[in-house]
Amino acid sequence: MDNQLALLTLFGSILALAFAASRAARVLKFPQGNEQMQKISSSIHHGAMAYLRRQYRILICFFAGMFVILFAMAAFGYLTWFVPFAFITGGFFSGLSGFVGMQIATRANARTAAACQQGLNKGLNVAFSAGSVMGFTVVGLGLLDISIWYLLLRLVFKLPIEDITSTMLTFGMGASSMALFARVGGGIYTKAADVGADLVGKVEAGIPEDDPRNPAVIADNVGDNVGDVAGMGADLYESYVGSILSACALGVIAFNKIESVDRVNAVVIPMVLAAVGVLASVIGSLLVKTGESTKQNVLLGALRRGTNTSAILIAIVAFPLVWFVLGREFIGFYLAILAGLLAGVLIGFFTEYFTSDTYKPTQDLADKSVTGSATMIIGGLSLGMLSTALPILIVVICVMAAYVCSGGFIEATRGLYGIALSAVGMLSTLGITLATDAYGPIADNAGGIAEMAGLDPEVRVRTDALDSLGNTTAATGKGFAIGSAALTALALIASYVEKVQEVGGASVELDMSIMNPTVLCGIFIGACLPFVFAALTMSSVGRAAQSIVIEVRRQFKEIKGLMEGKAEADYETCVDICTRASLREMILPTLLAIVTPVVTGLILGYNGVIGLLAGSTATGFLMAVFMANAGGAWDNAKKYIEGGAHGGKGSEAHKAAVVGDTVGDPFKDTSGPSINILIKLLSMVSIVFAALVVQFHIF
Amino acid sequence: MDNQLALLTLFGSILALAFAASRAARVLKFPQGNEQMQKISSSIHHGAMAYLRRQYRILICFFAGMFVILFAMAAFGYLTWFVPFAFITGGFFSGLSGFVGMQIATRANARTAAACQQGLNKGLNVAFSAGSVMGFTVVGLGLLDISIWYLLLRLVFKLPIEDITSTMLTFGMGASSMALFARVGGGIYTKAADVGADLVGKVEAGIPEDDPRNPAVIADNVGDNVGDVAGMGADLYESYVGSILSACALGVIAFNKIESVDRVNAVVIPMVLAAVGVLASVIGSLLVKTGESTKQNVLLGALRRGTNTSAILIAIVAFPLVWFVLGREFIGFYLAILAGLLAGVLIGFFTEYFTSDTYKPTQDLADKSVTGSATMIIGGLSLGMLSTALPILIVVICVMAAYVCSGGFIEATRGLYGIALSAVGMLSTLGITLATDAYGPIADNAGGIAEMAGLDPEVRVRTDALDSLGNTTAATGKGFAIGSAALTALALIASYVEKVQEVGGASVELDMSIMNPTVLCGIFIGACLPFVFAALTMSSVGRAAQSIVIEVRRQFKEIKGLMEGKAEADYETCVDICTRASLREMILPTLLAIVTPVVTGLILGYNGVIGLLAGSTATGFLMAVFMANAGGAWDNAKKYIEGGAHGGKGSEAHKAAVVGDTVGDPFKDTSGPSINILIKLLSMVSIVFAALVVQFHIF
Repeated sequence: MDNQLALLTLFGSILALAFAASRAARVLKFPQGNEQMQKISSSIHHGAMAYLRRQYRILICFFAGMFVILFAMAAFGYLTWFVPFAFITGGFFSGLSGFVGMQIATRANARTAAACQQGLNKGLNVAFSAGSVMGFTVVGLGLLDISIWYLLLRLVFKLPIEDITSTMLTFGMGASSMALFARVGGGIYTKAADVGADLVGKVEAGIPEDDPRNPAVIADNVGDNVGDVAGMGADLYESYVGSILSACALGVIAFNKIESVDRVNAVVIPMVLAAVGVLASVIGSLLVKTGESTKQNVLLGALRRGTNTSAILIAIVAFPLVWFVLGREFIGFYLAILAGLLAGVLIGFFTEYFTSDTYKPTQDLADKSVTGSATMIIGGLSLGMLSTALPILIVVICVMAAYVCSGGFIEATRGLYGIALSAVGMLSTLGITLATDAYGPIADNAGGIAEMAGLDPEVRVRTDALDSLGNTTAATGKGFAIGSAALTALALIASYVEKVQEVGGASVELDMSIMNPTVLCGIFIGACLPFVFAALTMSSVGRAAQSIVIEVRRQFKEIKGLMEGKAEADYETCVDICTRASLREMILPTLLAIVTPVVTGLILGYNGVIGLLAGSTATGFLMAVFMANAGGAWDNAKKYIEGGAHGGKGSEAHKAAVVGDTVGDPFKDTSGPSINILIKLLSMVSIVFAALVVQFHIF
Repeated sequence: MDNQLALLTLFGSILALAFAASRAARVLKFPQGNEQMQKISSSIHHGAMAYLRRQYRILICFFAGMFVILFAMAAFGYLTWFVPFAFITGGFFSGLSGFVGMQIATRANARTAAACQQGLNKGLNVAFSAGSVMGFTVVGLGLLDISIWYLLLRLVFKLPIEDITSTMLTFGMGASSMALFARVGGGIYTKAADVGADLVGKVEAGIPEDDPRNPAVIADNVGDNVGDVAGMGADLYESYVGSILSACALGVIAFNKIESVDRVNAVVIPMVLAAVGVLASVIGSLLVKTGESTKQNVLLGALRRGTNTSAILIAIVAFPLVWFVLGREFIGFYLAILAGLLAGVLIGFFTEYFTSDTYKPTQDLADKSVTGSATMIIGGLSLGMLSTALPILIVVICVMAAYVCSGGFIEATRGLYGIALSAVGMLSTLGITLATDAYGPIADNAGGIAEMAGLDPEVRVRTDALDSLGNTTAATGKGFAIGSAALTALALIASYVEKVQEVGGASVELDMSIMNPTVLCGIFIGACLPFVFAALTMSSVGRAAQSIVIEVRRQFKEIKGLMEGKAEADYETCVDICTRASLREMILPTLLAIVTPVVTGLILGYNGVIGLLAGSTATGFLMAVFMANAGGAWDNAKKYIEGGAHGGKGSEAHKAAVVGDTVGDPFKDTSGPSINILIKLLSMVSIVFAALVVQFHIF
């Protein structure tokens, strides 16, 4: 039966890609607007493509280097020959997801602006369709990669099932490293351009946002695409694939000793669940429609209808899936899937609660702007830190529920498989949740184009309504990404433990006790990594922004007639500075993530690595939630004030709020989301280098 | 031999208290300055005492309540009858340390100002002598409490040695809860007053710091005493006692199976080491003298001479101590002590490196003020996060070295005892390190008094030189406090594990593996606690500061002639507001620290608690370092700019730096240092409630 089920996954992949293609065709049929809009859109498109080209050039060197290392390790017998190739495909598809998403996003921005000239519903239609292209490309390519490798290894190479899952797991490392590069590089780009443009344009020169006189304005819009679209695409590709692969790997082990079930079934369940999720997401997407009200509630309701329908469909279909494929005595795994689905929704809700200005926390934060920027910063930091408590509790309850329902206290590996399945459950509706998330930056860009092209202010009001809604859905999307990252990272730790036992055999002396000093020291080192990583990425943004500030100031001074609108700014230099700076700055943090677990392993041994992974998962989760929520709340508090509270735009309170927003930018769009990838990349790297560490280590 | 050695501890205690008394007498002989100075000093004294009186009134209720609970638990057989009383003495002596320190500090401030009229050396003499009173009172009372209980239980009640250490360990909980109340309450007080006074005084009204027209100025000075003196005294009392007691408790277990050594010797070694430390600190203190140069290097050299001499003395004397008491085959424990001593010095150095404006990090941070407050904040946050890496590595290396040298890989409990001894080694010179730390707020107060009493500006230059030096030594002191907190917390986790086995016997199923979901969930919850705790304390400061802002604004508006210096401000109302606000706000965070481990234990069981303790120790250490260093760097970057960089006082850069400093205030003086106590209190509470958790738990 398993091959048929695996084929179902392939069909799911094809369905997703076909849906993405149909949506793309639909977007491209819309008119691009007037000549000036086309010109701006084309500048953004070219800037973004130039960035991606250069980024891929660097990444080809990295992937080639890693390929050689993995190849050498395979030659010495530390890896199977499939791993170097699996690594490459993981990286390739992750990169491709970002690329496709960005291609469509940069083509949809002017079209969204043009559609908003005709009405809000049309605008939503274009933007959400473009977001869907991204969402369904990510899941489609993810399932394609998984199902092709699975069928290849099983039907062509006829590998035993445990070798299949363990090989497939390693292509997660390719996806994760690609994702981290894309997130960090894109994140630095977008925030350096944004902060740089704001600091000189808004604060010093006093011109509005997206004003064409600002030389960094195109770079800012390019940044939305390379950071929030391409970076996010690669990121969520990695989350999605990682959760499925770790569940497959644990499925083999969980059903090792159970004779009544073919353990291959446990391997295909997460794949099929994801495929079912595609179908549910397609159905959900078709329900997203709105009228002409620009009220947040109505718009949000339209999107919610789509995501909720998808979630309910999954919850219904997963039941017979588990019942018939695994058998009724294992129906507890269904509850694990449900727990994950529910936890995702709850984390998303609390993320929204803490960051949306319709709720008290962000409104209270806005009040703090009255006493100045210092109290605004303290308020945002403490809001962000406090907001970690509920998501942590939800994850803890989800983990315990998944473990208990799956029978973890009877057989531990089953409990761990249950935790992995809950992560798959949480991400099963990714097609649509990502669509609601990815349409935000498109609407944002559309607003920028409307502004620069001098369209009717009514258009900007409509794009703003879409954009503001995008902030809320992006917060929810981030909640999902963070929650699933924590669950997947836990599943990956379990996979690492299995891998160590597999490659080391009888020589392995596992002692994962907290009282083992190597474990304890590993926890300390791991816990420190997200702090260091956040520090590096934040200061990268600072440095890159500083070079933009200097360039923009130079142009304002040297280009005569720029401020009067008589001369055109030199946009390309800013784009170029951002590109070079972000590509330079993305290397160190990513290398840190790859080198640390290997070095720690060689010194403290695999027990130390297990500690490191646990420490980094816990702190990484906290830092990711803290930074995302603090940043989101500052952003929305500023918007709340701009909406008229505490004196509105231009007031002292607003100035304080702008400081908070500027601090929050790298928090929520650079450091925070990168940490999600970091914690999984650490496990992936550990798994690939497990054999080396088992053989050579000091303690 | 052990009773003689224990008597040595008692002598060490008496030596410390006698030295403290002699220093106090010396301070009181100095003249108090003119009438106005005396009046100001007396206002500060009364404000501080009023605060302490009210705080103690609340704490009596708390301690009485806890006494009843512990008494009931003893009645039901979950604790020995000694525990409720040990709990009370721990709290009493911890509070007394803070009380004595504050008594002398509020008497020394005017005297220091008066002495500075005559010369810098005289000023240092008074301030440092007063700081020494604090330092030696803390270690004296700590050793007194320990040695009296030890002798009482051993000679009078003739308890077996393991019951003695396990009873004594529980009075750590009294000390820790007292310390947490004092640190949190004092920390909120001092920063609420400081932030409130600055926001209206400096920023809105444009009057200088410590200007007598500012109604919050007395509250600000009271705050230095109740926060930086009384709070710190209680805090370090707890660290000191906690490290010794956990080492004693682990000593019993480590030498359980070794026949060649009487394990009582292993219990007294940490006590004697601390007593030797008193002698070394006394000798070191006598070497602190300086000439008339106000150069930081010269002053710092004078203090360094004292602390370094003490450290070297300990390093020498500890060798024969271990050799003769434990025997030459256990000389590895000496290396563990050395590792702790060295780690303390190194963490102190790197703390200084990251926070002093003589080094690059803080100077670079000052540069960021040029582009505004947002980049200043981002810069400080990333500096703080990055600065966690080296201390973590030092602690990790210290832990591994202590464990390996003590023979932990032969017998794990010996390794854990070694880790505990390294914490005692780190804190053995506390007498003098605390003296160099505690004199800072005294010099700060003296400066305030000089300003308010309108003394010769030269006096202020001298007190400022002392104060600025105090910031550096305080940073070093904080490094010690944080480093020892991490090591002690680790030792306490080990003690908890032993306690669980002791009270549970054969029924206990210890599974401390990271792959045990209860442990993992415990780690998540524990890791979250420092975030929540930091959030609560920061927002408390914000709220309390806000009420001060409103009151100061009211007085500026309603009291006619205040700004012209014709009418006097109503200082007392501000003092009263601060007192009430800080006492109200201190309750929730402290209760959280007490309730969480018990509730977690009742649900997740002792394995979950062990995870919680490990998670909170790792994240707590990181947060404490991050917050202390970010805060310190902002403070000194501001001072660096005030020294003339980037346009000096009044420039835009300076305004940005003030924002950074204001954010840093609760970081470094409220939340950061409280977290040190939090992580130990969590363990202490867990130990006391161990029997209850062993009996009742869900998972």
